[in-house]
Amino acid sequence: MAAPLHFYFDFISPYGWLASLEVDALAGRHGRTVEWHSMLLGVSVLKVMGLKPLLDTPLKGDYARRDLARALRKRGLQPRRGFDQPVMDPLPAARAFYWVKHHHPGQEAAFAAAVYDACWMQGLDLSSAQAVAAIRLPAGIDAQALRAGIESDEARGWLREAVAASLQAGVFGSPTIVVDGEPFWGQDRLPEVEEWLVRGGW
Amino acid sequence: MAAPLHFYFDFISPYGWLASLEVDALAGRHGRTVEWHSMLLGVSVLKVMGLKPLLDTPLKGDYARRDLARALRKRGLQPRRGFDQPVMDPLPAARAFYWVKHHHPGQEAAFAAAVYDACWMQGLDLSSAQAVAAIRLPAGIDAQALRAGIESDEARGWLREAVAASLQAGVFGSPTIVVDGEPFWGQDRLPEVEEWLVRGGW
Repeated sequence: MAAPLHFYFDFISPYGWLASLEVDALAGRHGRTVEWHSMLLGVSVLKVMGLKPLLDTPLKGDYARRDLARALRKRGLQPRRGFDQPVMDPLPAARAFYWVKHHHPGQEAAFAAAVYDACWMQGLDLSSAQAVAAIRLPAGIDAQALRAGIESDEARGWLREAVAASLQAGVFGSPTIVVDGEPFWGQDRLPEVEEWLVRGGW
Repeated sequence: MAAPLHFYFDFISPYGWLASLEVDALAGRHGRTVEWHSMLLGVSVLKVMGLKPLLDTPLKGDYARRDLARALRKRGLQPRRGFDQPVMDPLPAARAFYWVKHHHPGQEAAFAAAVYDACWMQGLDLSSAQAVAAIRLPAGIDAQALRAGIESDEARGWLREAVAASLQAGVFGSPTIVVDGEPFWGQDRLPEVEEWLVRGGW
């Protein structure tokens, strides 16, 4: 089997959420798997790039709100979380992701999908370890162990390393899909990622 | 015939250039025409949004260079202007665009395409009225009249009004395509614009 696609996302990113709903099926149509990577826009966009959050940027924020509403209509999605609700703290969910990746390897994508669903479709605020551990977890993941794991030094360390590695790989936005070493930024590039897989690059 | 698409672009924008090569044919496939609008990223991005130029933004600049190189490979384009060359002053070409739009209505898209070709494919610096007037002009446009027009108060005024109108319409990036009142930002949204035309919106 060919190398996996790498899918970088932040749980607070609505475009990351939209891409998460499609990326595994897209890769599967071409015999590929996907490795999921939780990253932090608060580090790449705010600290390294020195930019404002997307929805707080003049003009672009209004555009994004309209574009997201259009994307929901297109997909028939009716999330309970509004795009202008206060942004949740992504750290507990991101630490949980790496704890699952290490302690339940192979289940991290299902876990991330469950987090995205809880956050966006169910509208839950997952800003605490308690809230993250209370979502519907993939089979075999124990809520109490997960909650302790989120607060562990090892989970903090794994997230720090992963965020540093994503920056090292040039990833700054959510979602970013890296296929055969080529980064594609933005949920709107999924069709081009698929074209890449069909043609074997260009 | 249904309402035209509105295509907003800056002559200094490589993504605007790429979109300019496809937008008329795209619209034509669905019985639509395109009204072209020259805008200024220096006003929307730098002044209103308070951002750095794309290629000067950490991480994103490196991504854009790579993404643009990939876009050129895909299309078999070999422009003489490198993406890291000093950015030309877009004002003379933008004023010229509105001068043509008023004095030779219907030829402004052909003129803009000629400017884009001169700037990117031929690698010319069009930072002066003289340089803009010296490109290969659409039939019927007199170079001397154009040169004087670029420096006229009326052309300055038309550009100022057009830039204000583009901001009023929420346009901040190049390219932006507005179809049936819906803005789509980015050359990578052309397939979605086409989907909109096929489905008649959603």
